[in-house]
Amino acid sequence: MSDLDGSRGAVTEQVLREDELVSRVVGSFAGCEDPRLRLLMQALVRHLHAFIREVRLTEDELYAAIRFLTQAGEITHDERQELILLSDVLGASMQTITVDNEAVGSATEATVLGPFHTEQAPELELGGDVSGGASGVPCWVEGVVTDVDGNPVPHARLEVWQADDQGCYDVQYGDGRVAGRAQLTADSAGAYRFWALKPTPYPIPDDGPVGTMLRATGRSPVRAAHLHFMVTAPGHRRLVTHIFVEGDPQLVEGDSVFGIRGSLVKRFEDQEGGTPAPDGRDLGGRPWTRTRFDIVLAPEG
Amino acid sequence: MSDLDGSRGAVTEQVLREDELVSRVVGSFAGCEDPRLRLLMQALVRHLHAFIREVRLTEDELYAAIRFLTQAGEITHDERQELILLSDVLGASMQTITVDNEAVGSATEATVLGPFHTEQAPELELGGDVSGGASGVPCWVEGVVTDVDGNPVPHARLEVWQADDQGCYDVQYGDGRVAGRAQLTADSAGAYRFWALKPTPYPIPDDGPVGTMLRATGRSPVRAAHLHFMVTAPGHRRLVTHIFVEGDPQLVEGDSVFGIRGSLVKRFEDQEGGTPAPDGRDLGGRPWTRTRFDIVLAPEG
Repeated sequence: MSDLDGSRGAVTEQVLREDELVSRVVGSFAGCEDPRLRLLMQALVRHLHAFIREVRLTEDELYAAIRFLTQAGEITHDERQELILLSDVLGASMQTITVDNEAVGSATEATVLGPFHTEQAPELELGGDVSGGASGVPCWVEGVVTDVDGNPVPHARLEVWQADDQGCYDVQYGDGRVAGRAQLTADSAGAYRFWALKPTPYPIPDDGPVGTMLRATGRSPVRAAHLHFMVTAPGHRRLVTHIFVEGDPQLVEGDSVFGIRGSLVKRFEDQEGGTPAPDGRDLGGRPWTRTRFDIVLAPEG
Repeated sequence: MSDLDGSRGAVTEQVLREDELVSRVVGSFAGCEDPRLRLLMQALVRHLHAFIREVRLTEDELYAAIRFLTQAGEITHDERQELILLSDVLGASMQTITVDNEAVGSATEATVLGPFHTEQAPELELGGDVSGGASGVPCWVEGVVTDVDGNPVPHARLEVWQADDQGCYDVQYGDGRVAGRAQLTADSAGAYRFWALKPTPYPIPDDGPVGTMLRATGRSPVRAAHLHFMVTAPGHRRLVTHIFVEGDPQLVEGDSVFGIRGSLVKRFEDQEGGTPAPDGRDLGGRPWTRTRFDIVLAPEG
């Protein structure tokens, strides 16, 4: 009986020690004058401690996690953001986007921004070519931007960016070239059109600690093929999204950053070489493809 | 009625989207062959997503967190580990130590390792001086190492390290000096004794992002005065702990890394200059102090 009591006493003492520590750390932020920051830090502490307690984290595991973050910091520079990649492969980026873009009627779903958006996208006329000389199968993209009631959003601004058919974005070329990105303005009826490249699947950079983690856990670094959009218009919620390619096997395998939403998977109609282009462009007999992406913007706020 | 239904529908759709994403990310680790790593990653994902969903994290806040970690990585080098510091000030280090050192009878409580432990501590005879020339009030420390049944642990190994009275550890001097650290072996009755320095409160390094966070949240960077111990003996659980100084105002203010446990607060008996030292050492008329720390080791495993 004394053994049993002793063991119960130890369990209680242990739970008390852990609870008391959580209270102490949460309490240390009580004096934070910014109420949002206080809420964030106190919730972070509660969830972080709940994780440590649930898994009974060992000190070796904590130091391994700290080493992991240290290595992620070491490999990060202006054009390689391993910590965004980490947030992406843990689904944290996608979950943040999901909670930050609450479902509103038929509004187009948002997905991850990714690490390859830049401020350098050149201005393009409607119908122009986004590829900027990057290699790939020409792809005609068209659609109309409306609000959730189906009214056109005239002059909506679109930014699009994508990898070439080798899976590289321009910032990865390392020679300062700008390609595979552009900004356009929809017409007065909200319609837009441009030439881009048919998206192809590619691995996220996996020569850093994030890649090591993916291999250690049996996960693929490959992203489903996609084309990035950022759409803005006054009075509407900014939309950051992709479209995906129907039939891409990676849609079944899974996307390494969890960006796929069924509603964002679009049919790409592949065309044989010689098929006339919608705008009469001379494609030199090359095969091309086309897709349609109608965009519905949620109201602001 | 249709408005109400519509709103309910949107809430449901939103919850479904968030739930589905968590399942998808948790599921992505299902193929991880290491069961412990799988458990850790899946639990991490659940808690991370629960945090994001609970606080309705914004994209700006996520990117601010990523910038914070990026800056912590940038300031980290061999002798400045901002990410350990971050773990410390969030109580994550202390909670990990708490779960990793379950309460066992009267066993001495563990506390944080801190970033200043090194492998360079010189060997010292019992009764020797740990300070190695570092400045501060001489402090006689003695005690006995026993097991939880009160039996002496003969020849237990002790490692001790501490800051000088300016709050600096030797690795912060920047000149390669080794001071304020030593390794000793208790005698055959488990007894130990050494000279050290009376511990003084000091701020953790606060010129980096962790310091910025502490200021933004109204927290103090100051650590309660303490002396570090690491105690090992075959058949016993390794003990990493501190002793704190009774009467230190910081015990009330709070310790910036949450290391304080009531059982680790010890009385330091301050002695006037000229009071004979316990070992007859000539202290040149300087005041000194003394404390006693009896150490109880938990059994291994």
